[in-house]
Order: sequence, then structure tokens, then C-alpha cells
Amino acid sequence: MKWDRLFEASSRYSMLIDHYIMDFMSITPDRLSGASLHLIKAGGKRLRPLITLLTARMLGGLEAEARAVPLAASIETAHTFSLIHDDIMDRDEVRRGVPTTHVVYGDDWAILAGDTLHAAAFKMIADSREWGMSPEQAYRAFKVLSEAAIQISRGQAYDMLFEETWDVDVADYLNMVRLKTGALIEAAARIGAVAAGAGSEIEKMVGEVGMNAGIAFQIRDDILGVIGDPKVTGKPVYNDLRRGKKTLLVIYAVKKAGRREVVDLIGPKASEDDLKRAASIIVDSGALDYAESKARFYVGRARDILSRVPAVDAESKELLNLLLDYIVEREK
Amino acid sequence: MKWDRLFEASSRYSMLIDHYIMDFMSITPDRLSGASLHLIKAGGKRLRPLITLLTARMLGGLEAEARAVPLAASIETAHTFSLIHDDIMDRDEVRRGVPTTHVVYGDDWAILAGDTLHAAAFKMIADSREWGMSPEQAYRAFKVLSEAAIQISRGQAYDMLFEETWDVDVADYLNMVRLKTGALIEAAARIGAVAAGAGSEIEKMVGEVGMNAGIAFQIRDDILGVIGDPKVTGKPVYNDLRRGKKTLLVIYAVKKAGRREVVDLIGPKASEDDLKRAASIIVDSGALDYAESKARFYVGRARDILSRVPAVDAESKELLNLLLDYIVEREK
Repeated sequence: MKWDRLFEASSRYSMLIDHYIMDFMSITPDRLSGASLHLIKAGGKRLRPLITLLTARMLGGLEAEARAVPLAASIETAHTFSLIHDDIMDRDEVRRGVPTTHVVYGDDWAILAGDTLHAAAFKMIADSREWGMSPEQAYRAFKVLSEAAIQISRGQAYDMLFEETWDVDVADYLNMVRLKTGALIEAAARIGAVAAGAGSEIEKMVGEVGMNAGIAFQIRDDILGVIGDPKVTGKPVYNDLRRGKKTLLVIYAVKKAGRREVVDLIGPKASEDDLKRAASIIVDSGALDYAESKARFYVGRARDILSRVPAVDAESKELLNLLLDYIVEREK
Repeated sequence: MKWDRLFEASSRYSMLIDHYIMDFMSITPDRLSGASLHLIKAGGKRLRPLITLLTARMLGGLEAEARAVPLAASIETAHTFSLIHDDIMDRDEVRRGVPTTHVVYGDDWAILAGDTLHAAAFKMIADSREWGMSPEQAYRAFKVLSEAAIQISRGQAYDMLFEETWDVDVADYLNMVRLKTGALIEAAARIGAVAAGAGSEIEKMVGEVGMNAGIAFQIRDDILGVIGDPKVTGKPVYNDLRRGKKTLLVIYAVKKAGRREVVDLIGPKASEDDLKRAASIIVDSGALDYAESKARFYVGRARDILSRVPAVDAESKELLNLLLDYIVEREK
């Protein structure tokens, strides 16, 4: 199958990363450890640590890859923190096919689990010194992560504000997505470059690969929110529509079909029938084609930049290219 | 007055720190900036940044003090993050005499504001490079903060678990307080030593000063929770008792008066009369004297260690000693 090589690399890396995170988060009290690891144990694609490790190997070979393990774990840990808190804010009850952390442990413990993972993500970067990172490298890595962490919060803030308004255009959407989703995937790639000891030019280039891949990733997520199979995605059907999220598809459909057609059919007051009807208006508007072409545009941009990055390891570069395909073709 | 010199230094430093934080947190969207700065703008003692700046000056003079500004701001920012999230978990509605962040902005924005401040605290340490910190110093500072941040979460976890049980003794309490309150005050002092370029022995010593001061600080907080004047403390009367917190006073009173006397009088189901009655049982048990002597014990230990720390600036050491007095004598 097309993705076999990618999944094989991914599952090898995931074992490393999961082991590192589980070990790191074996803290007391037990309930805090349990709440912090609940979503990690539920699985997930581990896409971000894969990007960190492949980027490190592409630029610095196997030694750089080994140094990057705590950094890759840090990125996944930061991602998990943001998912747990977003799920509280969005009142999402299912993710990765299991009840979300706040559903199982209550809001208070979910807030605290997120905070613990957030802190742990930074502590993992500090600990990367023991994996061969220099103080200068560790400093650069934590600068990248701390900048990304602020951007994620700002992105979530815009996402929440957009739920309250219909005055959101494609430029607003892209600004939000760059912050909410792009920034951490950009950081995943940059941190891999830092582990490889790459110069700031190369770090910036792979960061742009990550940012563009991240935008495409979010657009694909928006698409799966309308046409995805809940059994495959692990998320309830029409989640985004129920919450009144201004996804790229909703923005496009409103522009084509008119605000009045869509406005009463999505949001927390909409019935299941309303949501179904909203989904069919979205499909009829041509929003899927539009979003797919947008996703392909950003992945194409990522691929162009990646092609200009000098690689010491050709295989990891090929895998990164395959990963870019996967981002826009995935079903979950 | 006894505290004049301390308050004079504190208000001079607070202007610096507040300015730095306000400037740093001028981010979009505005609502995120507003929610993040709400509690900062309400005032506060700014005790932790004072410890960072005085420690830096004591060990490294005025240049070290100047380098420590972003670090001191980072510690206060991390503290504010933990207050905002704790207030959500504890359902506290008033702090520093104003409604808490989640009361004004709602839980979602308060979670997000806390997350943003948490990330910002780390980013401030990254930015300390521009204030003359070396990569090695910045690395050490950020290691200290990331360790403290995990400990704060663990401490809050124990604090929440203790609300569910009466099986909490003084050793459990002290373990919780070291994590929840001591760790960040320890970090405040250590980070000051890092800014001064002090060796790891000195860093450890001032850290112990901070840890012991932090334990005393929390015990004084527990005392003020029973006998404090809400107009002065800025917190509602009997807050801790209403929440069923296992403060040092409650633990002592239970040991003296018996569990059955106290158990039904505190916690979320207790009436105002119950709480008043619980407070008088606590007072009658001699818990205040006990707690005061404990607080003085830890402050004494902090003072002993501080006396052995070599100072290049005698005035800041005197002010730190004065601060130790203040911690156990303060009314707010």
C-alpha cells in the first residue's frame, strides 16, 4: 500500500516517543498521571514527532535523530496538552474513539493534566541536554516551543471568537489556522533542524515546510469534519458544525449559498436534521473541491520548499514527501 | 514603619515587572490579552519577582539585577497562570478584591488566559538572552522554571485530592505545600542566582531559602484564611474551610478536637454558621499558635541558610531578611 513505508517508520518512532512520554509522566499522585496519559494511551497519529525525527535525520543523520527523541516527545506532549484543554472549551466528548479527558476525569483534573503536560513539554527540552544537545541547541529549541505555545493559544482564541460571528473571511481563517495548527507543526520541523545543528536559514526553510503542511492538515481536518467516517476519524459526526466553527468549508458555502441559507442550520441550537442539511448545502456549494484544491496548494508549497532543502539522508526526505501526500489524502 | 524600606523596593521593582508583563502580553485578539492581564492589573504583592531581583542583586550587584528583569517577570507570570487555573478549579470568585478571571471572562477564556501566561513565562526566559543572559544561563533558568511548573501542578493535584479525604497528616500537608507553593518561590530565588552567574552550590542554598520561605508563606496564608480580614486579604472569609481544604490549622484541630467535631462543619455543604463554628473550634484547639510557631520555624531555617550566603550587595541581603519577617507577620 502507498503508505506502508510511512506507517512502518511512524510506528517505530511512536514506540520510542510513547515510551519516553509514559516514563516521563509516571508522576504522583497517580490520578494526575492517569489523567495526563489518558489521551496519549488512546493512540493518535503521532504526526508531529514524526516530522521532528524525520527532519532531524534528513539534516543530521542518525545521531541527530537520536538527539531529537526528547524534542519529538516534547512536541507531542505540547500537542496533547492543547487537545485536552481545547476539548474542555469545545465541550467535545469523544476523541480518538474514546471519551475525552474531562469526560473521564472531570474538568478540574483535565485542566490540571493539560497544565502538567504543558510544563512537561518544556522540561523534556531541558532534559534533551542529557541526549547530547548543547546548551545553545537546548536554548534554541525551547525558544521555538515557547513561541509556538503562545501562538497556539492565540489561534484557539480566534477560533472561539469566530464561533460568535459570521464576519469571518478566508484571510481571517488562514490567520487563525497558522496560529492554531500551523505553529506547532512548524515548531516540530524547526526543532528537528535544531537537533541536527542546522543553520538558521535551513531551520527557517523546514519551518515553512511545517507551516504549509500544517495549514493543509487543518483544511483536511475541516473536510473530514463534513465527509469523514466517525468510526475512522474517532470524532463524532458534524462536530465542527454543531459548535458553529467557521471552517474553510463553512466560509466558502456561506459565500456561495448566502449567509441566510446556512446560519440557522449550524451551531449549538441546530438539530441533527439541520446539521445534515447544512452538510448537504456545503457539499452542493462546491466547498469540498475548493478546500481540496486549497489543501493541495499548501502541500505543493511545502513540497517546493522541501525540495530545496539539502539532505544528508535521502530516505527521510522521501518519507517527509510521502507524509505531505498523506496529510491531504488521509481519512483520519 | 517596619516595612517601609521593603515596600519602597517592592514598588520600584513592581513598576518594572508590571511594565514588562503588560508590554509582553499586548497580544491579539484583545480579549485574550484582557483575560490574561485581568489578575495582574488587580495588583498583588509581587513577592516572587522581588525575591528574584533581590537575590540577583545580592549575588551579582546591579548588572545581575538588570539581567534578571525578564526572569522575575517570568516567575510572576507563571504564578498568575497558576492562580487563574486554581481559581477555576476551586470555584473561587474573588481574589485581590476583584472578581476572578473566570467570573469576568468565563471558564473557557480563563483556561486559555492561563495557558497563554504559562507559555509566556517560558518565552520571557527565552527573551532574557536580549537582556544579557548567556545561552547557558538561559538554559539553566528555563530548566528551573520547567521543573517548578510540574511541581506546582502536582501540588495542586494533592491539594484537590486532600479535599476528598480526612486522612491527611502534617507530613502529607508539608509535601503538598513544598510542591504547590514552595517550588515556585524556590525557583524565584534560584533563577536570581542564575542571573548573577552564581555557582550551583549557591544556587542550591538560595533555593532552600526560597523553599523554606515558601512553606512559611503558605502556613501564614492558612492562618489568614481563618483570622484574616477579607477587606485586607482581598479574599472571601472562610474560603479554605468552605472548600474543605486540609490546611495546617484544620489538620491540627482535627487531631486535638477529634475528627467528628470538625468534619461536618467544613466543606461545600457547610452553612455560614457551621463555618464560623469550625473557625472557633480551630482557634480553641490552639491551632493558631501551633501554625505560627511552624511558620516561624521555617522562616528561621530560611534565615539561617541566608546568613551563610556570601553577598556582594549588603542592602539586598538585608531586604531579603526583612522580607522573611514580612512573610510570617503580613496581614494580606
